[in-house]
Amino acid sequence: METEEILSKVKSGDISIDEAVELLKILPYEDLGYAKLDHHRKIRKGYGEVILCEGKSTEHLINIFKHFADNETDVLGTRASKEQYEKVREIIDVEYDELSKILKLKRSKYENLGEIAICTGGTSDIPVAEEAAQTAEFFGSKVLRIYDVGVAGIHRLISKIDQISRTNCIIAVAGMEGALPGVIAGMVDKPVIAVPTSVGYGANFKGVSSLLTMLNSCAEGIAVVNIDNGFGAGYIANQINRLVVGSIGK
Amino acid sequence: METEEILSKVKSGDISIDEAVELLKILPYEDLGYAKLDHHRKIRKGYGEVILCEGKSTEHLINIFKHFADNETDVLGTRASKEQYEKVREIIDVEYDELSKILKLKRSKYENLGEIAICTGGTSDIPVAEEAAQTAEFFGSKVLRIYDVGVAGIHRLISKIDQISRTNCIIAVAGMEGALPGVIAGMVDKPVIAVPTSVGYGANFKGVSSLLTMLNSCAEGIAVVNIDNGFGAGYIANQINRLVVGSIGK
Amino acid sequence: METEEILSKVKSGDISIDEAVELLKILPYEDLGYAKLDHHRKIRKGYGEVILCEGKSTEHLINIFKHFADNETDVLGTRASKEQYEKVREIIDVEYDELSKILKLKRSKYENLGEIAICTGGTSDIPVAEEAAQTAEFFGSKVLRIYDVGVAGIHRLISKIDQISRTNCIIAVAGMEGALPGVIAGMVDKPVIAVPTSVGYGANFKGVSSLLTMLNSCAEGIAVVNIDNGFGAGYIANQINRLVVGSIGK
Amino acid sequence: METEEILSKVKSGDISIDEAVELLKILPYEDLGYAKLDHHRKIRKGYGEVILCEGKSTEHLINIFKHFADNETDVLGTRASKEQYEKVREIIDVEYDELSKILKLKRSKYENLGEIAICTGGTSDIPVAEEAAQTAEFFGSKVLRIYDVGVAGIHRLISKIDQISRTNCIIAVAGMEGALPGVIAGMVDKPVIAVPTSVGYGANFKGVSSLLTMLNSCAEGIAVVNIDNGFGAGYIANQINRLVVGSIGK
Amino acid sequence: METEEILSKVKSGDISIDEAVELLKILPYEDLGYAKLDHHRKIRKGYGEVILCEGKSTEHLINIFKHFADNETDVLGTRASKEQYEKVREIIDVEYDELSKILKLKRSKYENLGEIAICTGGTSDIPVAEEAAQTAEFFGSKVLRIYDVGVAGIHRLISKIDQISRTNCIIAVAGMEGALPGVIAGMVDKPVIAVPTSVGYGANFKGVSSLLTMLNSCAEGIAVVNIDNGFGAGYIANQINRLVVGSIGK
Amino acid sequence: METEEILSKVKSGDISIDEAVELLKILPYEDLGYAKLDHHRKIRKGYGEVILCEGKSTEHLINIFKHFADNETDVLGTRASKEQYEKVREIIDVEYDELSKILKLKRSKYENLGEIAICTGGTSDIPVAEEAAQTAEFFGSKVLRIYDVGVAGIHRLISKIDQISRTNCIIAVAGMEGALPGVIAGMVDKPVIAVPTSVGYGANFKGVSSLLTMLNSCAEGIAVVNIDNGFGAGYIANQINRLVVGSIGK
Amino acid sequence: METEEILSKVKSGDISIDEAVELLKILPYEDLGYAKLDHHRKIRKGYGEVILCEGKSTEHLINIFKHFADNETDVLGTRASKEQYEKVREIIDVEYDELSKILKLKRSKYENLGEIAICTGGTSDIPVAEEAAQTAEFFGSKVLRIYDVGVAGIHRLISKIDQISRTNCIIAVAGMEGALPGVIAGMVDKPVIAVPTSVGYGANFKGVSSLLTMLNSCAEGIAVVNIDNGFGAGYIANQINRLVVGSIGK
Amino acid sequence: METEEILSKVKSGDISIDEAVELLKILPYEDLGYAKLDHHRKIRKGYGEVILCEGKSTEHLINIFKHFADNETDVLGTRASKEQYEKVREIIDVEYDELSKILKLKRSKYENLGEIAICTGGTSDIPVAEEAAQTAEFFGSKVLRIYDVGVAGIHRLISKIDQISRTNCIIAVAGMEGALPGVIAGMVDKPVIAVPTSVGYGANFKGVSSLLTMLNSCAEGIAVVNIDNGFGAGYIANQINRLVVGSIGK
Repeated sequence: METEEILSKVKSGDISIDEAVELLKILPYEDLGYAKLDHHRKIRKGYGEVILCEGKSTEHLINIFKHFADNETDVLGTRASKEQYEKVREIIDVEYDELSKILKLKRSKYENLGEIAICTGGTSDIPVAEEAAQTAEFFGSKVLRIYDVGVAGIHRLISKIDQISRTNCIIAVAGMEGALPGVIAGMVDKPVIAVPTSVGYGANFKGVSSLLTMLNSCAEGIAVVNIDNGFGAGYIANQINRLVVGSIGK
Repeated sequence: METEEILSKVKSGDISIDEAVELLKILPYEDLGYAKLDHHRKIRKGYGEVILCEGKSTEHLINIFKHFADNETDVLGTRASKEQYEKVREIIDVEYDELSKILKLKRSKYENLGEIAICTGGTSDIPVAEEAAQTAEFFGSKVLRIYDVGVAGIHRLISKIDQISRTNCIIAVAGMEGALPGVIAGMVDKPVIAVPTSVGYGANFKGVSSLLTMLNSCAEGIAVVNIDNGFGAGYIANQINRLVVGSIGK
Repeated sequence: METEEILSKVKSGDISIDEAVELLKILPYEDLGYAKLDHHRKIRKGYGEVILCEGKSTEHLINIFKHFADNETDVLGTRASKEQYEKVREIIDVEYDELSKILKLKRSKYENLGEIAICTGGTSDIPVAEEAAQTAEFFGSKVLRIYDVGVAGIHRLISKIDQISRTNCIIAVAGMEGALPGVIAGMVDKPVIAVPTSVGYGANFKGVSSLLTMLNSCAEGIAVVNIDNGFGAGYIANQINRLVVGSIGK
Repeated sequence: METEEILSKVKSGDISIDEAVELLKILPYEDLGYAKLDHHRKIRKGYGEVILCEGKSTEHLINIFKHFADNETDVLGTRASKEQYEKVREIIDVEYDELSKILKLKRSKYENLGEIAICTGGTSDIPVAEEAAQTAEFFGSKVLRIYDVGVAGIHRLISKIDQISRTNCIIAVAGMEGALPGVIAGMVDKPVIAVPTSVGYGANFKGVSSLLTMLNSCAEGIAVVNIDNGFGAGYIANQINRLVVGSIGK
Repeated sequence: METEEILSKVKSGDISIDEAVELLKILPYEDLGYAKLDHHRKIRKGYGEVILCEGKSTEHLINIFKHFADNETDVLGTRASKEQYEKVREIIDVEYDELSKILKLKRSKYENLGEIAICTGGTSDIPVAEEAAQTAEFFGSKVLRIYDVGVAGIHRLISKIDQISRTNCIIAVAGMEGALPGVIAGMVDKPVIAVPTSVGYGANFKGVSSLLTMLNSCAEGIAVVNIDNGFGAGYIANQINRLVVGSIGK
Repeated sequence: METEEILSKVKSGDISIDEAVELLKILPYEDLGYAKLDHHRKIRKGYGEVILCEGKSTEHLINIFKHFADNETDVLGTRASKEQYEKVREIIDVEYDELSKILKLKRSKYENLGEIAICTGGTSDIPVAEEAAQTAEFFGSKVLRIYDVGVAGIHRLISKIDQISRTNCIIAVAGMEGALPGVIAGMVDKPVIAVPTSVGYGANFKGVSSLLTMLNSCAEGIAVVNIDNGFGAGYIANQINRLVVGSIGK
Repeated sequence: METEEILSKVKSGDISIDEAVELLKILPYEDLGYAKLDHHRKIRKGYGEVILCEGKSTEHLINIFKHFADNETDVLGTRASKEQYEKVREIIDVEYDELSKILKLKRSKYENLGEIAICTGGTSDIPVAEEAAQTAEFFGSKVLRIYDVGVAGIHRLISKIDQISRTNCIIAVAGMEGALPGVIAGMVDKPVIAVPTSVGYGANFKGVSSLLTMLNSCAEGIAVVNIDNGFGAGYIANQINRLVVGSIGK
Repeated sequence: METEEILSKVKSGDISIDEAVELLKILPYEDLGYAKLDHHRKIRKGYGEVILCEGKSTEHLINIFKHFADNETDVLGTRASKEQYEKVREIIDVEYDELSKILKLKRSKYENLGEIAICTGGTSDIPVAEEAAQTAEFFGSKVLRIYDVGVAGIHRLISKIDQISRTNCIIAVAGMEGALPGVIAGMVDKPVIAVPTSVGYGANFKGVSSLLTMLNSCAEGIAVVNIDNGFGAGYIANQINRLVVGSIGK
């Protein structure tokens, strides 16, 4: 029995108000709770679905993409292998970016959001940075890419700092010692999303060193995502970026 | 020789242009570089200075506060002991919040920013949450406090989720298992700043357990600050919040 | 507007069914969701409330105990200091166990549950074991205490194994190398709840060594709680124990 | 000399009582101690043997299975590769489940036990969950599978909570942040066995993050097994489940 | 019923052999099993009891010492505070060594064992070394003390190496980098028991650095005990030393 | 110039005493120091050389074995692959044990030493145990192998304890929870060398769990070697075993 | 507008001095700051560029080497695979050292620097040592190689200590327990650069054990680089070595 | 018998050459080996002795200082408490620096060495920096102090970089994220000794975060000492600095 049905029966006197209260209590959460939560989710869904492709079978992946394609929903697939892409595109018209391993099914247009900056310490950090960049672009952000400006040659970064400071949010991606986000946050008064990468060796411990550096930064205005989590950084940077547009429209 | 002096001599012909270029190169960075960076810092300084009081001698602290008071600059002191507060207020008129250990010298008025939400898992997380709240309020944010809504009683959180989702940015503070930020981010499409606290015992390892939980959240839209770093979370949340106001003004 | 009120208005035709659906959607979760969840919680509440006393102010603690005393609800306070106990008992008639630091307000009688066994490796593990024992007893379990039967003198344990195997569930508490639960589980076919303690020094790392030992046990039928978490072990053992009684009653 | 023989000789006067005491002392433990312990083990053996297949040679594995098949003993093989299965089934009629890698030789029927629930956070946790499910089913439990209800979309879980709360014991399997068991335990008053999985990346550290989350849960009624140890969870859940049936029979 | 009693009844025909077998099976393990194990333990007990004093109440400690004094059993108490000693000696005539915190009740004489060497890297390692030395001496070993011969001044060690190599077993105690045992084992062909100490700071991690160094030594003939476990080293060194005497006597 | 030559020249007056002192000071350490140390090493060398084969090129390995074969020196090669063995035996007559990966060149006969016991927790620990066994046998020990007597089925161990306690030294090898050495040391008064193995998964952390268990054992008479270091255990057990024989001969 | 242009306009009176100061402030950092920093970098560049080859595509690598070859700049490539070398040398005349994986493009001659010593504990540490040696030689140092002088056979090291102490700086490379640098620093009064290697197994944790040993050395005059970072050690040793030559020239 | 005595007797024929060789072999190492090593140590001793005061009793400390004072040897005491200083100066005329906790007995004059720079990230790092500074000054270095130039305000550092680059060696001291040494090494071509401090909180783990940052720096020319080891940095920096002077003198 759905909510409407219960209410109809209350109205018609088929069930008492007490009975209705009881029924509403045991009504599956999908009906009310879910719908309500769904309302919140719909805002995001307007921006499409996100699928972690890594570890999924090709059949499973094709089904997911077909399902969303049929429903006119955009999909962003992360950590997709080239093999997965090739199988999926036999069935559905998808795009693939080999560097960031992002697989895209995009039909709708989003509002144009403002610009975010994505900086990397070295060239080996670029795949993670591109995962962030492609994610943010998928959801409507413009991206200023400033790669290979690590703190071991600080003048490279300083010469770009004006450009960087004019964007709404900065993603700073770095492996090894991971000092880049702290140095940027010391020079720019915008939120900095720090992404440690697993680039390095020895006592880097697959990104732990960079992660700790970023969490301990003494500059103000930094928050950190998981090691190599370019997608997570791109997603939250886009959320922040959208606040600007959203408010303009008010 | 200062920049103006060099330029005067160029104008008067006392030195050649080539000589001036050389002189400008060796001119101390304070003059140019510093000034330039200062320009970026001034935007932030408009929002006052931040001082970590912990570990500073009372004399040192009083001097700092006096210096800024004389310059009509606001100051936010973090991790100040009650003793430090009592000594400082003998000299300068400062406010103190015992729970968050925040010491404030505030003269100016900031623009009114929008609202951010600050949620905690338990009551023991409140001091860290208040450090975040007081910081954000100091810099102009309105703060919606939703405390003690940890995931061990998820219905408490669910009943507040609509209120939370109407703010611009959420700070989620949690110790022990630290699952709160992930659950909130799964229900709300706004940036979530996660703050692990050192509340817990045994295999909590002074907040490491909560920190790892937050970094590994599978919900989208979370970034994390250091363990117990309420100030850091309040600062970046205020930066995000300001983007909204800033853009409205455009 | 409460659920009943909405339903009344539907019945009376004051609002349409569609309007009612909308109202139910925005009705605070406390009303429906909370009530429903509360239903689940009530089963447990019948067994009283649990309060972590550590870190709570005396005033706060007295208020909580008074509130529950007024509502005829039993309360189990864990990690209470003797000072806290002395202050609380000035106002309310509570019991205190100094070894386990458990503070009890108990009015109701529970059904008599079956027996669980609580074993310790050494005498230093007894405070944690007693926290488990007092918790289980508070909620209705009988407890067989078998203390100081660590694996460094395995014959002490073997002579008790028949007694142990006749209980419904075993809590095995051990510090240092933490081998006790595995040895018991190898001899008894009942669920074993393992509690690592922080007893030890050097490479024990405050209980980490015992914790790892227990997680890695090659005996079947072991699950582990946090270091020093006697309460957690007592609680789940009592839940398991109650399954037996519950089913008998069917 | 066996016990009976010694006793006969005492009776006949062939040896003195003192000599008999001495003989009994040096009598191999197999005779008394072993038999006694065996008595405990037999209860479990009635539920069949458990073999860890991983790392065993095919020849060794075939011998073990043949031995038990000849003795009409059921065998549950865990972590068996498909290759191992194919070799073993050439000789003995065994069943294999590819997802959980469980290899079964089952002849006897067990009493029908009640139902346990097995929940997972994501789809990648399913192989571990199935190891638990197949194990519990092998030993007689009914299993309610509730997969992919992670806390990043809490409404999915809430809609199932009534079903879950009607089972005797819940196994909650989760990787990444591992928050699922705590959220379930906060809503259901049945024992929850938490299984961390190694699903995740970066600061997940192959399941350590999930493990710590589960050990630190502030909800009551959780105990944890080793990372990816689906078998261990299924085994202890079945032990708990059996307590209900056992007691009914009383 | 004791074993002798059962046997008497068998002899007298009061019980049948089958009944006796059953009785022997349920006879508490203390009687047979314990006795048997006790036989092994007696060898050690001849060398007295060992009591960890740390964490024991004075009353408890006095009782233990009185009990053993009454039974003419020697006792070695480890990690005893001066306060504990002062209380105990009011009742029983015990000796105390302040440096090693060892409390001794010694009545019997042991055979004279051969010599072991105890070396330390620095002077701060001496309390741990003395715990080893006093333990070994208590059980009959002669001890050659070679303190403060750390590898940062290798010549000090080299000049003593002949003396060291003439003992039966070497205990090498070191904090900080913990390299001493490996260097000794490279020069002497006797078993080396390595004791890491918690002496050091920073990345020493309370002895972990020294522990790892010792476990990873590439010299042959080293085995390691827990951090600061002087007692454990002294005990096993004495066991090794006793093998020499034992065999001489054959 | 050798020592003798210098002395001859002193005697003949060719050089002054002062010159001789100077010459002796700069005389390469090989001459005196080395010789002296060599004297200690020779005792061990009498027992042959030890070569870590892993990571050495086949050519290098063949050269080493040829060199020692020409010098009539025995060689024990550890961690040798089958491929290495096959190449070496083309040139020199060596023996190989596939399970322990030990490669042997043995010409001489050693005195017959007494017996040591080697116990394992499971069957997966056998390769490490065999590395210990083959090493000890190579250097003259007799080895009593007691495999698969882990603490999850303690009766298997108890039935063998008499046999074990009659040897001179016990090597206890265990992975997973690593509790075996502590249980043995609680029952036997001989030195126990504990070997953690990397057998296990999840929170075993490649042997760290077993290692910590062994270091933290509360039984007396245990010392530990590195994870999987069967060779190290076999070597030191043989050293201990030799003390018995050595002393008998006195 | 470039600096010169601004100065010209000041001279010609086209802009005022105040306007020029403002312009100079917003002048991109490349112009002044960069140039200035470049001045510092040029000193180093005189010693050629350093390229981490690992992880770079062959095309990318060839382009880099061609670019520098065209500019007559020397290049030191580290961690180059043989495949990378073979591809690069098809285009440019480069040298390759297989052991250290160093790829060299060297045209210029450097001043002859003094000698540094490079010591290793074992033969497995040689590849890391050679990376250090080749780096130092590339930049002008003479290198004294003293390999396989680990502390397990300390006499080998002692016999070389005079030679070592006559060099300007020592690089000590060691895996396993990593004690070599501390022992050398105890005998020689020159700066010792310690390089932990990942050689070892078990509780070595891929070089962490050696790293900790070196950081905790109680000898004076040691500083440490990352695990396996031969290049880093060779570079700083060469910098130190150059100080001697530089000063001689004064 | 001393070396000279043996040689005299060889010359006089009182002992044979063979006897002399034997005597020289057993001659304590102090005589030859020690003397030789002492020769190396003397160079350092010329710079005085170093004593770690922490953990030493006042009596012990006074004795040490008196001994060296009597021998006209300079002493540098590290980590001395004010109480220790006050007791020592009652007997001997020593100097004390409260910030660095360094206790000095200095009589001799050293050659004047060149200048080293000591930089800190924050003001809390100054005590560690001063330990380095006082150590280097004690042994003859001039010290340029550049404090509070952390990377969160990079312009402060840049303005000083010319001054810094003119010294012979840089010590960079930093807590929290520890990025300072890497940024300096990227701008200056002199050896940088990095000192992590334990300043910070949460995921700083008492300096581990800073330590890892420094070990993983991608800038060339950095080596690291233990956490808070200002003395170690000052000592090696002085050694490097002395190489310049030493070579000038050649």
